Amino acid sequence: MTDTEKLADQLLAQERRALARAITLVESGRADHREAAQALLDRVAGHGKQAIRIGLSGTPGVGKSTFIEAFGMMLTGMGLRVAVLAVDPSSARSGGSILGDKTRMERLSREPGAFIRPSPSQTHLGGVARRTREAVTLCEAAGFNVVLIETVGVGQSETVVSEMCDLFLLLLAPAGGDELQGVKRGIMEIADLILVNKADGELKSAATRTCSDYSGALRLLRKRPQDPEGFPKAMMVSALQDEGLKAAWDEMNALIDWRRENGHFDARREAQARYWFGEEVKRGLMAQLETPEARALMEEGAEDVAAGRTVPSVAAQSVLDRLSVSKD
Amino acid sequence: MTDTEKLADQLLAQERRALARAITLVESGRADHREAAQALLDRVAGHGKQAIRIGLSGTPGVGKSTFIEAFGMMLTGMGLRVAVLAVDPSSARSGGSILGDKTRMERLSREPGAFIRPSPSQTHLGGVARRTREAVTLCEAAGFNVVLIETVGVGQSETVVSEMCDLFLLLLAPAGGDELQGVKRGIMEIADLILVNKADGELKSAATRTCSDYSGALRLLRKRPQDPEGFPKAMMVSALQDEGLKAAWDEMNALIDWRRENGHFDARREAQARYWFGEEVKRGLMAQLETPEARALMEEGAEDVAAGRTVPSVAAQSVLDRLSVSKD
Repeated sequence: MTDTEKLADQLLAQERRALARAITLVESGRADHREAAQALLDRVAGHGKQAIRIGLSGTPGVGKSTFIEAFGMMLTGMGLRVAVLAVDPSSARSGGSILGDKTRMERLSREPGAFIRPSPSQTHLGGVARRTREAVTLCEAAGFNVVLIETVGVGQSETVVSEMCDLFLLLLAPAGGDELQGVKRGIMEIADLILVNKADGELKSAATRTCSDYSGALRLLRKRPQDPEGFPKAMMVSALQDEGLKAAWDEMNALIDWRRENGHFDARREAQARYWFGEEVKRGLMAQLETPEARALMEEGAEDVAAGRTVPSVAAQSVLDRLSVSKD
Repeated sequence: MTDTEKLADQLLAQERRALARAITLVESGRADHREAAQALLDRVAGHGKQAIRIGLSGTPGVGKSTFIEAFGMMLTGMGLRVAVLAVDPSSARSGGSILGDKTRMERLSREPGAFIRPSPSQTHLGGVARRTREAVTLCEAAGFNVVLIETVGVGQSETVVSEMCDLFLLLLAPAGGDELQGVKRGIMEIADLILVNKADGELKSAATRTCSDYSGALRLLRKRPQDPEGFPKAMMVSALQDEGLKAAWDEMNALIDWRRENGHFDARREAQARYWFGEEVKRGLMAQLETPEARALMEEGAEDVAAGRTVPSVAAQSVLDRLSVSKD
């Protein structure tokens, strides 16, 4: 039995440390690690449980950590096993991931049924995306029931996360006035459930107004085929006071159940798998330009066309020929 | 002397029929034609004149044909040779190109100093873009002084055209009220000169208001480094009554002269050449997926990941291995 086979078995036997080691393996950039990671993934794919994959976004200050901790504690209290992953393409720049220290979720990180993993330090969203998808596969192999994928709303990261989860939560803070907060247009079309957090104390009435504003705005959106009546939906929660979390979880389950019964759940997972497969192939083709030889050829070709010595298509063909790529 | 060398010589000798034949060659999808086209382009690149490349956009009804005809007649009247090309990615669908029949510009098409070429029927904007860039090179080899590249505002076509011209004109019709017309946000950032057409008869006062609205809007845009004081600029013209065309041409020359003196003209051409070179290389790499063998592998991989038999990165690696592509 190879080391990889052993790791796969430990993972399927739900050994917590095996999961941490397996994720470290898929995060590694070393060629031999990559090979082992692929063998591992191929072996566990399709085994293990099918977790509910939940994407979660919200700008800094809306109380994401508090929400994840309270929500996660509630789920583990129900006997469910919860994994928390993060997609933060900015973590390499900012010098620390959004889940960098588990002190942010101290209680949850001590729960035996919970697993928290910070975002890896990678500059490319593509790299973070692949690692997160693969970590989800590993969490499912390890028998987790719920996988939460947290993201900050940086650039394309929300779209990327929505392409790897079954439902998407948008966490908001109560707004001051009656205007909708500066929520990016695209995210309203991604969100399945909008949760207005901090619906407690003196912010309660502001939260009520904000929730009602968003309910109104959601009703104006075109109905999506993957939604039952009443979705997407806006709700109030207070992560601090542990209020509304059970109601939110019930809505998530109602949505997931409906989508399962109507074929949307499986159809979406299939479409996501096909999408990422296509992206990975494209990425692999583009990687042909990353060798030192290819870089030198590209530089030479760029100089030739910039100087007007030839035209772009001819210079490109010459690079492709020398890279032994046949072209249309 | 090969046929291609002969064609190159005829082109450089400014033989009009050679230009038409050369463009037909670069439009062809046949592999042997493509090879001949590349040999031809490589031979003529850097020879011939450096034409002023002018992009022109405007929605149907603003009088684009009338403008091109009147503007082109004015230029040929000055002894300049004018080529008119078109980028219309929709022409394959609509069954006819926007310059499909030269009856649209009857007078100009009969001018010995003018050359009009309709958009090729290709479904991909990428294909139309390459053909148009190559046709521009051929027109310059054939000694044309001005190359007009017309586009309808469909999808990305304006961005594509702006990446292959020295200056970009936006043609507008007088608006009814004081609101800015439904001009796409991006195009205001591309345009160097906004021409409000139909500034004649009973539309004259509406044209004055529209022009002043746009002048105001342009002043709100951030100044671009490639613009002298006062640019981008809005002006009124009447293609029908031949008014304002000379003034517009003078502004174009003032802009081009300033950009030449300040290094922006050459810098932009270089950047454009580098950009298209990169795009052509990417396109060539992606073309590796278009063989029947690659399509079959892609289909098989997609089925495997959709069924959950493996994960996207593993399936992708398997396709890349079988296509003999080494991957990161």
